[in-house]
Amino acid sequence: MRVDGLQVVEPGDIERHSFQIIGEELGPHGFDPQTELVVKRVIHATADFDFARSLCFTPQAIERGMEALQGGAHVVCDTTMVAAGINKRVLGSFGGMAHTFIGDADVAQEARARGLTRSAVSMERAARMEGPLVFAIGNAPTALVRLCEMVADGTMRKPQLVIGVPVGFVNVVESKELLLETDVESIVARGRKGGSTVAVAIVNALLYLASGNRRE
Amino acid sequence: MRVDGLQVVEPGDIERHSFQIIGEELGPHGFDPQTELVVKRVIHATADFDFARSLCFTPQAIERGMEALQGGAHVVCDTTMVAAGINKRVLGSFGGMAHTFIGDADVAQEARARGLTRSAVSMERAARMEGPLVFAIGNAPTALVRLCEMVADGTMRKPQLVIGVPVGFVNVVESKELLLETDVESIVARGRKGGSTVAVAIVNALLYLASGNRRE
Repeated sequence: MRVDGLQVVEPGDIERHSFQIIGEELGPHGFDPQTELVVKRVIHATADFDFARSLCFTPQAIERGMEALQGGAHVVCDTTMVAAGINKRVLGSFGGMAHTFIGDADVAQEARARGLTRSAVSMERAARMEGPLVFAIGNAPTALVRLCEMVADGTMRKPQLVIGVPVGFVNVVESKELLLETDVESIVARGRKGGSTVAVAIVNALLYLASGNRRE
Repeated sequence: MRVDGLQVVEPGDIERHSFQIIGEELGPHGFDPQTELVVKRVIHATADFDFARSLCFTPQAIERGMEALQGGAHVVCDTTMVAAGINKRVLGSFGGMAHTFIGDADVAQEARARGLTRSAVSMERAARMEGPLVFAIGNAPTALVRLCEMVADGTMRKPQLVIGVPVGFVNVVESKELLLETDVESIVARGRKGGSTVAVAIVNALLYLASGNRRE
């Protein structure tokens, strides 16, 4: 087994070394330090520098997101993959939990009956939750659209932050533009790209910022 | 709320419509129908057409993977996110299960003691499992390297298939080339890109092929 092509990096140094490479290849940028950390964590999770251009932050998004997490916000995820990737140790240290309703039997039943996606109905479930809410939408544009509709028509109060990074080809671009038209604080990956790993990278970056651990 | 920019697509038609767009934009290609399905599912999960060039399949990879899954293979994942995304209903219908050892307390303890990553030690746990094995490595190059070493030195028998799609900057490219040098059947995303969503898309594509449901 030829393994001499491998770099020798101690387990504890892999992440730091990765961030160093990302910083070098990213080059000069106009990000403030907190935004830079979020962007770099997304690049770290995807090896895709396109996100340095496509990620959009409303002016107070990071600050409000950090405050919400520090206050024990519920993090509502559109899929179990997103919920699985979130650092529950740090989230739990603030009193928060990750939630997803997509797998609930009654959600599937109601979606069928009403001709909606399970993702859209699961957002209606989340809208009834109490306390500060952070949404992490990495897959379903229909979830993001339903969320925007409910905020616009007053069915739900404004969430503290919406991370809107669904991925794909049908209404994905449009759902993100819709979110940016609302007055909800948001972090959005414009365009088609996004996904569970992007949503998770953003939530975890905010958790590290919120806990004062830049992890870089 | 302006939602007139959205396409009207019924919930049950979103995936088919997405695959139609992917097919149009992918254009002519040399993939056989099964490979095409796997490639398209990865593009569907990432909106990244780079994977049409970077995905590499050993000649028997899809066939052996399908057979293993049909035979109730264990699917060993490097992270809980990968395990969370796999279609357990279809996997379970063949008698298989998704496994991940990364969160086990004794894995963390042993990794610290031996100066290895938890990912590498979790592969050693998996190597002891009985029955056919399919590996889905979406994150940790150290897991993939340890797997290649164990197959090469005979510590473990050859897995039926290794999906080697870790993502990142440190030894990621190298770990995938190492896998391609072995005689293990593999599906690899060459280069830096990959990730949990890519690993999941490949496993689920194989599950749909194995169950005779092309889902396209």
